[in-house]
Amino acid sequence: MLSFEGSEGCGKSTQIRLLKERLENEGREVVVLREPGGTEIGESIRHLLQHAKEGHSMTPETELLLFAASRAQIVREKIRPLVERGVVVILDRFLDSTTVYQGHARGLPLDAVNAINRFAIGGTLPRLTLVLDMDTTLAWQRIHATGRELDRMENQPPAFFEKVRQGYLALAAAEPDRIQVIDASAAPEAVHEAVWEKVAARLA
Amino acid sequence: MLSFEGSEGCGKSTQIRLLKERLENEGREVVVLREPGGTEIGESIRHLLQHAKEGHSMTPETELLLFAASRAQIVREKIRPLVERGVVVILDRFLDSTTVYQGHARGLPLDAVNAINRFAIGGTLPRLTLVLDMDTTLAWQRIHATGRELDRMENQPPAFFEKVRQGYLALAAAEPDRIQVIDASAAPEAVHEAVWEKVAARLA
Repeated sequence: MLSFEGSEGCGKSTQIRLLKERLENEGREVVVLREPGGTEIGESIRHLLQHAKEGHSMTPETELLLFAASRAQIVREKIRPLVERGVVVILDRFLDSTTVYQGHARGLPLDAVNAINRFAIGGTLPRLTLVLDMDTTLAWQRIHATGRELDRMENQPPAFFEKVRQGYLALAAAEPDRIQVIDASAAPEAVHEAVWEKVAARLA
Repeated sequence: MLSFEGSEGCGKSTQIRLLKERLENEGREVVVLREPGGTEIGESIRHLLQHAKEGHSMTPETELLLFAASRAQIVREKIRPLVERGVVVILDRFLDSTTVYQGHARGLPLDAVNAINRFAIGGTLPRLTLVLDMDTTLAWQRIHATGRELDRMENQPPAFFEKVRQGYLALAAAEPDRIQVIDASAAPEAVHEAVWEKVAARLA
């Protein structure tokens, strides 16, 4: 079980796709999950989060607890059974996104965020978490150069992206064995090689 | 802001009704709330909890986090504005139910349950919590003597009721100023007088 983290524009989707292909070429069974990840309960929670966003009345605490509820469900209903079957589970964001976005960037109390995360995952931590790191201005420009309509997170100012980046770097410093930082400013193939080196070492 | 707690069959509804009437006779504005308490988001969460219960697939951790999400919402959307307006808010169960039912009785880790409760309420604790306490066998017999169809909690064996009772007594011992125990085995009018004595002293 691996997770990918990073701010918007860091190239997470591309790297996950490349890693999945390579692992499958090596004969591994791979499942990529993104929360709420297709559990029936998680989908209902996502619907609630989206619906409420339109009403603007949901408190940040409620939002965090709903994310955590969805995570508690996917961990027990999907991730654990897959891991037990020997499947490589790749998570497109997981608990560290909550810590960084709601804790570091939005300012909810970190000790509470950590306690809720721990309760939700119940010990099911990724063996390896890769943070795709790049200069904040570069990430911000990449997103705005796409020309497509941006979502709520992508539309944040550069200062928010910087808080997110510093949050991830702080987590990596605190948990250097699990969380490893990869320079994501290089070409996708070069970033993939760096990803592969870390993953191959951990799976071996 | 007051809360009432106690196991099924303790007479909570009757005592809340009697207290509300008396406070109103004294000229107080009173609102009785029972979670999810009529917030739109809370009602959606309740629907999710009920719907999922039929499918039997929701994990206990997910359930607890959904309750907490609903509580975070009602605290900020309803309770705080009412309290600021000077309304006496009476809660029919609040955070202590989660601690006792999910923590003491169901065995989820108490430190996590407490951290999640604290995060959900964000400092909005009841000024007074009344635990209506009675012999477990008596409470159990009362419920089963009604002849009506029982819900999931009411249908638990006596040993579960005893865990709930001991959980409440442990909380009251740990927070003797906020949580006070009332002997609920007497006649409703006598119990009401005991309730009134505590409430009047606290509101004075």
